[in-house]
Amino acid sequence: MNDKKAVATAVTPILKKLNSTSSDIQASAVMSRDGHTLASVLGDTVNSVRLGAMCATLLSLGEKASLELNRGHLKQILIHGEDGYVLLLRIGEKAVLAVVSQPSANLGMMLVEARRTASEIVALSVV
Amino acid sequence: MNDKKAVATAVTPILKKLNSTSSDIQASAVMSRDGHTLASVLGDTVNSVRLGAMCATLLSLGEKASLELNRGHLKQILIHGEDGYVLLLRIGEKAVLAVVSQPSANLGMMLVEARRTASEIVALSVV
Repeated sequence: MNDKKAVATAVTPILKKLNSTSSDIQASAVMSRDGHTLASVLGDTVNSVRLGAMCATLLSLGEKASLELNRGHLKQILIHGEDGYVLLLRIGEKAVLAVVSQPSANLGMMLVEARRTASEIVALSVV
Repeated sequence: MNDKKAVATAVTPILKKLNSTSSDIQASAVMSRDGHTLASVLGDTVNSVRLGAMCATLLSLGEKASLELNRGHLKQILIHGEDGYVLLLRIGEKAVLAVVSQPSANLGMMLVEARRTASEIVALSVV
């Protein structure tokens, strides 16, 4: 089940559930580590191509930084901007979950829900 | 009071206090946004030059990602590796606080202490 459409069909409902956990979550996506979108539930504020490109670059640099500073392989990157958060969470070896939220998001809850979502996606064995 | 030695003298005790809040905090430093170390309290596990170089690159990309994804100017980046955390927190317009910790660190407490430390450094008006 590596067909792209099948992956999107399986993963999209899980992303919808994640986005519905809080009105502060504006977008979520699962991407390959090289930035290709496998499934996404994006609002108007997030551009899919930009998100993919930025995630791939951030993951690559984040992995390098984590290793260089003796923190081991990268698990997660959190970007906190004045107008919100971007969370990137590794899913297995090949994919990443991206979550984009408003600044009012409860960071602890967002991390918990993102981890739960990542586990659900891993359990599908499609990425 | 922009003399480098004076900055280090003023900031180092504040970093020592931060590191002493938890045995999980292994290193902290204040750097200019282009990666020059202004003051640091590093353990054996962190190399000052590597930390400066990585921070400058992460900050530059983090700012770009935050703006591109409509999250405003960058406030903070958190790298979570299998063997620990690297937190970068903006201090005013020109400097950044870096905190390196073990994986067992309490993330919430680390964020609170880092923010308190950043406020103390801003109050000094030396960076």
